[in-house]
Amino acid sequence: MKPVCLVIGAGAGIGGSVGARFARGDYHSVLCRRSDQAGLDKLVGNIKAGGDEASGFLLDVTQADVIEDLVARIERDIGAIDVVIFNLGAQIGNRTLADTSYKAFEMGWRLATFALYRVAKSVLPYMEARETGTMIVTSATAAMRGNAGQHSHAAAMGGRRLLCQSLNAEFAPKGIHIAQVVIDGSVDAPDTLGKMLGEKDFQKLRETRGGDNDGILLPKEIAETYWHLAHQHRSAWTHELDLRPRTDAPWWNDNPTFSY
Amino acid sequence: MKPVCLVIGAGAGIGGSVGARFARGDYHSVLCRRSDQAGLDKLVGNIKAGGDEASGFLLDVTQADVIEDLVARIERDIGAIDVVIFNLGAQIGNRTLADTSYKAFEMGWRLATFALYRVAKSVLPYMEARETGTMIVTSATAAMRGNAGQHSHAAAMGGRRLLCQSLNAEFAPKGIHIAQVVIDGSVDAPDTLGKMLGEKDFQKLRETRGGDNDGILLPKEIAETYWHLAHQHRSAWTHELDLRPRTDAPWWNDNPTFSY
Amino acid sequence: MKPVCLVIGAGAGIGGSVGARFARGDYHSVLCRRSDQAGLDKLVGNIKAGGDEASGFLLDVTQADVIEDLVARIERDIGAIDVVIFNLGAQIGNRTLADTSYKAFEMGWRLATFALYRVAKSVLPYMEARETGTMIVTSATAAMRGNAGQHSHAAAMGGRRLLCQSLNAEFAPKGIHIAQVVIDGSVDAPDTLGKMLGEKDFQKLRETRGGDNDGILLPKEIAETYWHLAHQHRSAWTHELDLRPRTDAPWWNDNPTFSY
Amino acid sequence: MKPVCLVIGAGAGIGGSVGARFARGDYHSVLCRRSDQAGLDKLVGNIKAGGDEASGFLLDVTQADVIEDLVARIERDIGAIDVVIFNLGAQIGNRTLADTSYKAFEMGWRLATFALYRVAKSVLPYMEARETGTMIVTSATAAMRGNAGQHSHAAAMGGRRLLCQSLNAEFAPKGIHIAQVVIDGSVDAPDTLGKMLGEKDFQKLRETRGGDNDGILLPKEIAETYWHLAHQHRSAWTHELDLRPRTDAPWWNDNPTFSY
Repeated sequence: MKPVCLVIGAGAGIGGSVGARFARGDYHSVLCRRSDQAGLDKLVGNIKAGGDEASGFLLDVTQADVIEDLVARIERDIGAIDVVIFNLGAQIGNRTLADTSYKAFEMGWRLATFALYRVAKSVLPYMEARETGTMIVTSATAAMRGNAGQHSHAAAMGGRRLLCQSLNAEFAPKGIHIAQVVIDGSVDAPDTLGKMLGEKDFQKLRETRGGDNDGILLPKEIAETYWHLAHQHRSAWTHELDLRPRTDAPWWNDNPTFSY
Repeated sequence: MKPVCLVIGAGAGIGGSVGARFARGDYHSVLCRRSDQAGLDKLVGNIKAGGDEASGFLLDVTQADVIEDLVARIERDIGAIDVVIFNLGAQIGNRTLADTSYKAFEMGWRLATFALYRVAKSVLPYMEARETGTMIVTSATAAMRGNAGQHSHAAAMGGRRLLCQSLNAEFAPKGIHIAQVVIDGSVDAPDTLGKMLGEKDFQKLRETRGGDNDGILLPKEIAETYWHLAHQHRSAWTHELDLRPRTDAPWWNDNPTFSY
Repeated sequence: MKPVCLVIGAGAGIGGSVGARFARGDYHSVLCRRSDQAGLDKLVGNIKAGGDEASGFLLDVTQADVIEDLVARIERDIGAIDVVIFNLGAQIGNRTLADTSYKAFEMGWRLATFALYRVAKSVLPYMEARETGTMIVTSATAAMRGNAGQHSHAAAMGGRRLLCQSLNAEFAPKGIHIAQVVIDGSVDAPDTLGKMLGEKDFQKLRETRGGDNDGILLPKEIAETYWHLAHQHRSAWTHELDLRPRTDAPWWNDNPTFSY
Repeated sequence: MKPVCLVIGAGAGIGGSVGARFARGDYHSVLCRRSDQAGLDKLVGNIKAGGDEASGFLLDVTQADVIEDLVARIERDIGAIDVVIFNLGAQIGNRTLADTSYKAFEMGWRLATFALYRVAKSVLPYMEARETGTMIVTSATAAMRGNAGQHSHAAAMGGRRLLCQSLNAEFAPKGIHIAQVVIDGSVDAPDTLGKMLGEKDFQKLRETRGGDNDGILLPKEIAETYWHLAHQHRSAWTHELDLRPRTDAPWWNDNPTFSY
C-alpha cells in the first residue's frame, strides 16, 4: 500500500500539479477540491493514465466534520497519510474596508486559517503516532504583510503563517516536518487566478508575462520544490521559503522607481 | 465637548491606564470591558475623582451588533471618537494542539482579529469623514512569531497584525493614524496576567521581576507611549513599535545560553 | 552641569533638529558633522540664541581616533554624555553593481556600521559605569531590505541594524537604552536629500509632496519622537520604531497598482 | 568542458559537501579555502576518486585582488562559472563589546560582507553576459537578528543578507539566481564548529545531539538543498530559505520555558 499524499485544494494549478508530482513519485495522491467534479475527475484521470495512483473527493471545508471524516476515511481505506499539502487560498481581490463584508472577512478566516487548524488537528495525531510525516502549506505574499484592499486576505494568511510556526514548534521535535511556501507572484492557475481575472485578462497575462518572460509561476515547477521539501533529511529541514518568477520583484522590493 | 478616547478592553492594566492618561490630557475616555461592573466603576470613578471625564460600558464583543451599536451611541451621545485603543487580548496560556479546542481556536480569532475588524468597520467611517483620527492596537510577541502551545493565540494575533497593516495602507493617506504596539514582556496587569497566573504566582513575579528589576511592564508607563503615538505629526507617524522591560530579552533573543 | 546629548551627524535635518530639541529640554547638545563650519556655527548659534546650551565640532569619522578622542574630551570638559544620537547616513543614490566601486562600498560600511561600533565602544563604557544612558540610532528603509542599486547602502544599514540589536542584548540589562528609528520616507533635509537631488528637484519635491500633503518627514517632528524614546521608563523601552509621512506607503507596501 | 561550481569557503562541512554534490552532478567543482593544503587536497582527491572533476586553491580573501584574479583564471582555464557557492563564515564566538576589537570587527566585515561583494563583482559580469548563473550564499541565524556577544558577526551577516537582496533585485531579471540559505543550527563541521568548540566538546555535541537526535545539521544533507536551489526553474526561484535540525528550535522560538 502506497503512502498517501493528501492535497487540500486541488485545482489545475499548484494543488493538481503537486498531486501529480507525488503520484509519479510513488504516492497515492488524494485530491480534494470544493466543486467541479468534472475538473477533479480530469486531474485524477490524468494521473491514473500515467500509471500512477490517485483518488478525488469534493470537499467543502466550510462544512462541519467533513475534513475530520475524510481524513479518518483515507487512513482507514486508502493508506497512511504521509504528506499533506494544504493549498486552500482565500484571495478575493482588492476591496476597501467598506466593501469587505462581515461574511467575506469570516470566510477568509474559515478557508485560510481555521481549515488549516482542522486539518492539523485531524492529520497530525496519525503522523505523531508514526513519528513521521510532512505538512506543506501554501502561503502567499499576503501572509508577509497587509496590503491595501487585502483586509480579509491578509488577516487570514497572516494568521495561517503564525499557526504554521506554532505547529512547527510542537511537532518538529516529534518528527513531523511542517513547511510553508510563500508564493510571491502570479501563478499560472486557470482555476483560481484565471477565474479571478477573467479569461481575456488571464490570456493577456500569459502572453505578456508568461513563457520566456518568466513572469508567472508555473505549477509543475513549483511542484518540484514541494517534492524537495517533503524529502529533506530530518537534520536539515526548511520551515519557510519563497518562490517567485525571475522577472517579478519580491514583495519587499515593489517600488521600481525610487528607493531609499 | 471633548474628543472621545474609546478603549476596547479596559481592565486594571494597559487599557485602564491609557484611558486615565487620555482623560488627563482632556479627552473623554470611554472604557469598555467584558465583565466586572465593580472594577469598571472603579476605573471610571478614579478618573472622575481627578476632575476628568470618563464613561464605562460592559461590552461582550462576542455578541453581534454590540460594538457597532456602542460606537454609534458614543458618536451620538458623548462625542466624536478621535482615538480608539483596541486592547483586547486572547491569551489562554500554553496548550498543545490536542488541548486546543475548536471553540478556543475560534474564540481567539473572534476576540483578537474579528473584533478589531468590527471596530475598524464601525469607527473608521466617522474618522474618514472628519479626515482625522487615531487607532492604536495593542499587539503582542505572539503577533511576531508562533511559539509552542500558542496555536490559537499566534493565529489570532498574527492575523491582527497584518490586518493593521492593511488598514494602515487604506486609511493613512486619508489622515487616520493606525499604529500597533508590540508588548514584548509581562505586564503588571492584575486583571489579565494576574488572573492567568493566580494571585500567588503573580505576587511572586512582582517581587522577583518588578520594581527596580524593571522586568515587568508598568501600564502607566506604557500609556505614555500610547499618548505620544496619538500626538505624532502627520508627516512622521509610527506604524509599529515594541515595548519591553530593560531586563527582558526581546523575542528574537530568547536564548541566553548559546547563540549562533 | 547639564547632561550632554551628543549628535553624530548634525546637519540641517534630523541631527540638527534633535540637537535643538534636547537643548530645549535642558541638555547641552554637542553637534558634530563632517564639514561646513558655517552651517555648524549656525545650528549652534540658533540654539544658544534661544538661551540653551550647545557646542559644535567638525568630525570626519573616517579618520582614526577622532571619535574616541572627542568622546573623552566631552566627558572631561563638557559633561556626562547621557544621550547619543547616531545619525550618520551613507546614502549615495542608486548605482548598479558595476557602478559601485570598492571604495564606495567600503565607505558605506565605514560611515554607517563601523562608525557606530566605534561610537558604541567609546560612549557605552561611560554609560555602563553610570548605569544609565540612551543611544538612538537613525535607521532607514535600506536597513530593512536590499533594493536595486542599494548594494553599498543596504549592506551598511543592514549591518547597522543587527549591530543595534546585539548592542541592545548586552547593554539593556545594564540600564542603557538602545533604540533605532527607521526613517521610511524622504526627509526635509537640505543638507543631505537636498544636495543629493539638487536644489531644483528638492524644491519641486517640497512643493508636490510637502506641506499639507504630508509626504515628506519634517525633522522637528521627528525630533519629538527621539525625545520621547529618550525618556521612556526603564520598564517599557522601545527598541525599534518606524516613521513615515501620512501619504507615503510603507516599504512593505510599495506597489500601488497590484497586490497579491 | 563541464560547467564550473566555484565554492568559496570549502572545508569539511557545507562547502566541501556542496562541492562534492555538484561534482557528482557533472560540474567541475573548484574548492577554495584559506589554509590547510592537506585538507584541501583530501577534499579534491575524494571527488576525483569518485570519477568526478575538481580543483582546489588556497585563497586568503583578506588579500587584495586574489578573488578577482582567481575568477578570471577559472573562466580562462577551467570553464564557465555556472554556480558560485559563497560559504565564508565569520563566527568568532560570543564576545562582549569590550572584548570585540576593532580588528575583529573589521575582519568580520571583510570576510562576511566585503568578500561577497568582491565575488559578486567578479563573477556576475560573466553570468550576465551568458544570461544565466546561480549564486548561493550561506547565511546564518546571526543574519536574522543580533544576539548578545555577536556584535561583529551580526553586523557582518546582517549586511550580507541585505546585500544579497540588493543583488537579487538587480540580477534576477537578468537571469541570475541569487539565493541565501539561513543555517539556523549547529553544523557537523569539524573544520569550523569543531575547531571553535575543541575536539572534546565537539565530540560530546555529536554524541548528545547527533545521530538519531537530529540535533546537528549534516553537511551532505544540506548539499541536497543547495543542489535543488541551483536547479529550480526560472519561473519559480527561491531567494531565501532556512535549514535546521528537527529537534532544534528556530531562532524565533528560542525560549522553551515560557512564551507570551
